[in-house]
Amino acid sequence: MVDYSRFISKVASNIKASEIRELLAIIRGRKDVISFAGGIPDPALFPRKELAKIAGVVIEKYGDNALQYSETKGIIEVRETLSDFLARKREIHADAEDIIITSGSQSALDIVSRTLIDPGDIVITESPSYLAALGAFKMNGAKLIGVKIDENGMRTELLEEKLKQLGDDVKKVKFIYVIPVGQNPAGTTMNKERKKHLLEIASKYDLLILEDDPYSYIIYEEGAETASLKSLDKEGRVIYMSTVSKILAPGLRIGWIVAEKELIRRFEIVKQYVDLHSPTLNQFIVAEAIKTGLIDDVVQKAMPYYKAKRNTMLEAIKENFPDYVWYSKPIGGLFVFAYVYKNGFDAGGLLEKAVKQYKVAYVPGGSFHPEGDGVNSMRLNFSYPTHEQIREGIARLAKLIRES
Amino acid sequence: MVDYSRFISKVASNIKASEIRELLAIIRGRKDVISFAGGIPDPALFPRKELAKIAGVVIEKYGDNALQYSETKGIIEVRETLSDFLARKREIHADAEDIIITSGSQSALDIVSRTLIDPGDIVITESPSYLAALGAFKMNGAKLIGVKIDENGMRTELLEEKLKQLGDDVKKVKFIYVIPVGQNPAGTTMNKERKKHLLEIASKYDLLILEDDPYSYIIYEEGAETASLKSLDKEGRVIYMSTVSKILAPGLRIGWIVAEKELIRRFEIVKQYVDLHSPTLNQFIVAEAIKTGLIDDVVQKAMPYYKAKRNTMLEAIKENFPDYVWYSKPIGGLFVFAYVYKNGFDAGGLLEKAVKQYKVAYVPGGSFHPEGDGVNSMRLNFSYPTHEQIREGIARLAKLIRES
Repeated sequence: MVDYSRFISKVASNIKASEIRELLAIIRGRKDVISFAGGIPDPALFPRKELAKIAGVVIEKYGDNALQYSETKGIIEVRETLSDFLARKREIHADAEDIIITSGSQSALDIVSRTLIDPGDIVITESPSYLAALGAFKMNGAKLIGVKIDENGMRTELLEEKLKQLGDDVKKVKFIYVIPVGQNPAGTTMNKERKKHLLEIASKYDLLILEDDPYSYIIYEEGAETASLKSLDKEGRVIYMSTVSKILAPGLRIGWIVAEKELIRRFEIVKQYVDLHSPTLNQFIVAEAIKTGLIDDVVQKAMPYYKAKRNTMLEAIKENFPDYVWYSKPIGGLFVFAYVYKNGFDAGGLLEKAVKQYKVAYVPGGSFHPEGDGVNSMRLNFSYPTHEQIREGIARLAKLIRES
Repeated sequence: MVDYSRFISKVASNIKASEIRELLAIIRGRKDVISFAGGIPDPALFPRKELAKIAGVVIEKYGDNALQYSETKGIIEVRETLSDFLARKREIHADAEDIIITSGSQSALDIVSRTLIDPGDIVITESPSYLAALGAFKMNGAKLIGVKIDENGMRTELLEEKLKQLGDDVKKVKFIYVIPVGQNPAGTTMNKERKKHLLEIASKYDLLILEDDPYSYIIYEEGAETASLKSLDKEGRVIYMSTVSKILAPGLRIGWIVAEKELIRRFEIVKQYVDLHSPTLNQFIVAEAIKTGLIDDVVQKAMPYYKAKRNTMLEAIKENFPDYVWYSKPIGGLFVFAYVYKNGFDAGGLLEKAVKQYKVAYVPGGSFHPEGDGVNSMRLNFSYPTHEQIREGIARLAKLIRES
């Protein structure tokens, strides 16, 4: 038989499988384990009936177009609908030509990376940050620099320090990746001052910002500070991206990028060779779901629904976890993040024991940290488990923490 | 404002927009121009009613799964359905674990390229070959070597010559890319001897083959030689890929790769960071369309439908084109390819005149040729225009050829 190893590219040889996805594969089907390891919406919120109807209507009504090849950039009517949606929801004023539709957020991350990153370039991220984004940046050859976060998001004073330390290498920094609202995994949200400071720094050092914004559409506290960086961006430095994964259905794989036309044009050319275009049918479905108000309905329903689950998790943690655990109190997103400040606590090393003996699963936080720290951390998802599972699972987790 | 040019990666700076897609954008909406430039199915063949019903059923019945995140490799039930389909249609005996679902063929090309190609590696292709495949290979850093084709497909004796000429550099060859049936753009089909020879050469020089097979499901001549290379592959050298774009609907963006498990595993890891997974809903729709026999129905209907259009084009060419034009007589696929053997004939240079003065469009063949020749060639699509348009368009084209 063939020895395939010599055919594998350096890039492919160096990347590791995503720990989360491997883990989910193991847990799947084990009914006795309570899992906080997912990052997936509660299917109870999927508007099945309405989407079934929309899909049918779209195919019957726009079939010749909806089933056909379409423009790489995305269908113009869909981009126009998104343009209105973004103005209304996020105060982002972009016309249809500033928008490119992508095959979910992951493809947006990949296309931005391929368009901007040369091997050896630097990407700055929050620490911790979204695992699959770090993976996409690394696969495309980036070196990562992490900037610690606190309750108010990326600590921009540390960012500026790091940039100063870089000296001439600051030219290699292609962009700063942030998830300002309901951060994944940390569950934190950037405040106004930090946002302002971040934009100032980007301007001062001539840098781009990649704003990943999947969670801001569903917020659990009225009056919370959730303005998008893009809406504050006067210089065209912010590349904004989002998705319908959390506000409609992830199985549709529809996301989008908003940026200056010159950048969008570059993304478009790369996308031609990456996947030609995103599924036409799914684009039409998303446009209908926006126009008919279906997405607004889902969001209205999801807010109290997830808020209640978040509250259950925060209460259970407060009751059960020892004092030496720090945890975030998210106003958005799907995650609580926890650091266990106890000597030698290794969330990754304990996971097998957690699953097998304590029947509870989480995502070890280490791999979210671009610089290799954070072994004492874990990400806890509250969107998918039931209230009862949250209470019981947190109790099991508390036991694991105390007994380890 | 920001000067974006310094942020663009070398890869993105070097790639050009796909000529075909740019061209289609220009022609779109110009009703007076007859276009042979597309490569798209006739929407009259889209089973709108049936797909509208299937989409509704899938969402209602499998909604929790069909709208949710899913496995990177593809939904297991869908891969199992494809496994049966491939055995039945193409005598490819692959189990579900040998299959990975991709976001259309283009994404398959990209994922295979990223997994196998290091910058400076060599990919061997037919000359001419599929433009967007050449683009994907180049974007991923490959140097291309073209091997001329004739009525019987890639001229394998020339392939062996080129491999010998490479000497030690043969180690840099990652794969040989072929479209054995109804080739795009040439409309040729490989005969048995050539297939056998190609597999022998791959074995002798320890090479992989990437078999792109979108067209073989719809064949216009009974008894034509259409066996897939994969079905003849004893050593695991063939990576097979196909799509529903020509047998159901391109707007779904569903394709697949079949290969040895070890390679599939590598593709899967890359795909995690490329697009996480292909749209779940679309995967379920494809599985239903296979299981309910809808794809078989479309194929049954498409065969005489496209065959008639092909015949109309071949007859019109025979009547109208001068003797110094060579053209292919395809048994499958959507294209007739033509070389105009007249001094200085430049299909690319003449295109603007063709569109503006003669009101007819085609794709200039030059960019299909990996080594820069073929300026005197053009690709003519017969699937999309009507019979009347084909007759009239070919007459206009003949006029252009004679008068240039």
